[in-house]
This record gives sequence, C-alpha cells and structure tokens, in this order.
Amino acid sequence: MKLYWTPASPFVRKVMVTLHELGLMDRVDIVPTRWPHSWATHTVDFAPDFIAATPVGRIPALVTDNGLRLVDSSVICDWLNEELGGGRLAPADKAGHWRMRATLAIANNLLEAQIARRAETLRQGAERSADFIAKMADRQRRCFVELDGAVVDGPLDLAQIATAVACGFDDFRYPQDRWRDAAPRLAAWYEGFRQRPSMRLTEPAETPQ
Amino acid sequence: MKLYWTPASPFVRKVMVTLHELGLMDRVDIVPTRWPHSWATHTVDFAPDFIAATPVGRIPALVTDNGLRLVDSSVICDWLNEELGGGRLAPADKAGHWRMRATLAIANNLLEAQIARRAETLRQGAERSADFIAKMADRQRRCFVELDGAVVDGPLDLAQIATAVACGFDDFRYPQDRWRDAAPRLAAWYEGFRQRPSMRLTEPAETPQ
Repeated sequence: MKLYWTPASPFVRKVMVTLHELGLMDRVDIVPTRWPHSWATHTVDFAPDFIAATPVGRIPALVTDNGLRLVDSSVICDWLNEELGGGRLAPADKAGHWRMRATLAIANNLLEAQIARRAETLRQGAERSADFIAKMADRQRRCFVELDGAVVDGPLDLAQIATAVACGFDDFRYPQDRWRDAAPRLAAWYEGFRQRPSMRLTEPAETPQ
Repeated sequence: MKLYWTPASPFVRKVMVTLHELGLMDRVDIVPTRWPHSWATHTVDFAPDFIAATPVGRIPALVTDNGLRLVDSSVICDWLNEELGGGRLAPADKAGHWRMRATLAIANNLLEAQIARRAETLRQGAERSADFIAKMADRQRRCFVELDGAVVDGPLDLAQIATAVACGFDDFRYPQDRWRDAAPRLAAWYEGFRQRPSMRLTEPAETPQ
C-alpha cells in the first residue's frame, strides 16, 4: 500500500503510529509530499499521482493494494485496525468500544482545531484573524480539559493514539498554550506514552516546501 | 437522547436523515441552538447545557440515554446505525463495507469544505480571503466529480446519506457552482433520493441568530 505523507501533519502521524503499533511498516510505501505555505489559502500544484489518490487533496491519503483509496486519517486508521490489525486497537466490549470512539471524536476535533489554527497563522497580513486563532485556542483548551478526564491506562487503542498525537502537536506548534496546565493527568499519562517507539519514531518536523 | 440542532448545518442534517431512516425520531429530543454570524471567527456564548454536552462547541452533538456524549456527526451516525439500527446502513460484506466507508470519507470531506467556505464567507472585510473560497470551491468540484463515479443504487447506506446532504447543501449555499455540470450521474441519482421523506422533512433553512 502507499501512504502520502508529510513529517508535520498530526493526521499523518496518527496513521504512522498506528502502522508502527500494528507492525505494518514493511507493508507500506511512504510517499513524501511538499506543501508551500500558501496551502493555507490556495489550491497548490498537486503531483498527478497524489491528486489521483485523493480528490480532497489533503494528507494523509492511503491507496491499498486492492486500489481502495482512503482520503482521511479516520477511515485509514479504521481500515488498518479492522482489516490488517484484527481490530485490536478498539475495545471488544460494546460499552468500552463506544467510550473509546467518543474520546477519539474529541481528539480528532482537537487535531482539526490545531490544523485550522496553523492554517490561520500562515495567512498573510490583514487576512489573518487574531479572533479565529483565539477561537481555536479556546476549543483546544476545552478539549484538553475533557481529555484529561478521559485518560485510561487500558490496552492501547485508537483514542489513545489520537490523543497522544494531539499532545505532541501542541508541544510542536503551540508550546505557549501550556496544555499541561489544563490537563495534568493527561500530561502524566503522556510522559509515559511518548516513550513508545511508535511515538519516538514519528516526532513532528517541518514539512519541506 | 438529546440532539443539539440547527436547520442549516449539513452535519446535523446527516444525523436527522439517519434518525428518520432508522425510525428513531420518537426517541430523540431536538434541542435548537442559535449561532450569531460571528461564529465564523469568535467563540460565541454557549448555553451551559450545550457546552457541557460537547467540549468542541459545534453542532451536532448527541447525548445518549446512558450519558455518552458524541461530538460529531460521524460518530453519532455510526452509533445510531450500529447500536440502534442493527447496522443496516452499512453493507454486510467486507468489500462493500470499505467501498462505502471510502465514499463516505469523500462526502464528509466535501461537507467540511462547504462549511469552511461558509465560515470564510461570513468573515468581515479584509479578513475574507477570495483565494480560500476558490480553494474550497476547487475541492468541492473535485469531490463531486469523484462522487459521480461512486454513485450506487444499492440498499440505503451512510455514504448515500452524506452524499445527498452534500448535494442539497450545495444547492442551498452555492447554486452558482452548478455541481450537476460536474456530476451528471450523481445529479440523476439525487433527483430520486431527494424525494425520500427523510430528505423532504429536513430541507435546510437559515439558522436563527
């Protein structure tokens, strides 16, 4: 299978951590992509194979060996887990399953806010809205507070992966937010989680332009 | 259960169509929410029960009878379908299931582009970016072209619902885009689909401010 990738995207990192944890790294070709900063407001030039893989034009995008094209991290992680991972990144019992998915949805929305704010930061001059940045920071903080109450030390699951990636992305882009002040239990949990090889091998770095 | 609602949101409409199709309308309390146009760039005043239901602060949000809080339309529709609908809005065979989910991901990303563009349109003066609006219009068009090739007339599923809602939202907000020109097969399919009672009962209307 083929994964369209950048080193900065937390959505890509979710997929990469999932691949590492499921022992699938030898099954995937990583295809690096470049993004000029103008991606925030412009349709950039897409490589033909990339835009053939995803009409959305965002990363991550995965093309499976059967030619199935999966255009966002949620469906990619579900497919990896259920088709290739035997479903082991989701609790088997019903109540646990839905608690996990409820937490995962919060983590995914936190990631979305982090990226929307990043795009705003990249806008030029008068097009940049300090209000919008504050709105996203508010949402990030509310989500961190909520995730602080949802921390579980059970077997690894997709919600833990997404949550840890969100913690790492805040450290990468928004250290001034001091998310640990809002979420001390989450912070303690993350100190352990970030030591996993899957996390250490996927630390964020700037995307080539 | 309790659903936080507005009449304009296509993400809410996805949930409403799902509720109608699964025969669950008598099981849900609909809680209308108000959104001043400043939602596009500001944290608006949230009703206390709403922000207690969702740290994300977006609609739809669902609180189940067990107190499970589901903060976006994807996890809500999955929960309704799998927990209360016997899974009948997803194909039972594996290949069909993942084809459906791949299409659903494209429709969801199309809806996201439609809403991001709406938020941009509501920005004031110099903060509004014509480039960003064009970028979203480009993405919408690519997704419509892709969905044109994915139209299926099989049993009702979540991808069909999301796709039809996206068609309806383009008609509501962006009729000048003429999405039918890019997706003639989808247009023919939608003419039939939009006649379903679940669609007729959920036509979009402006959100009270």
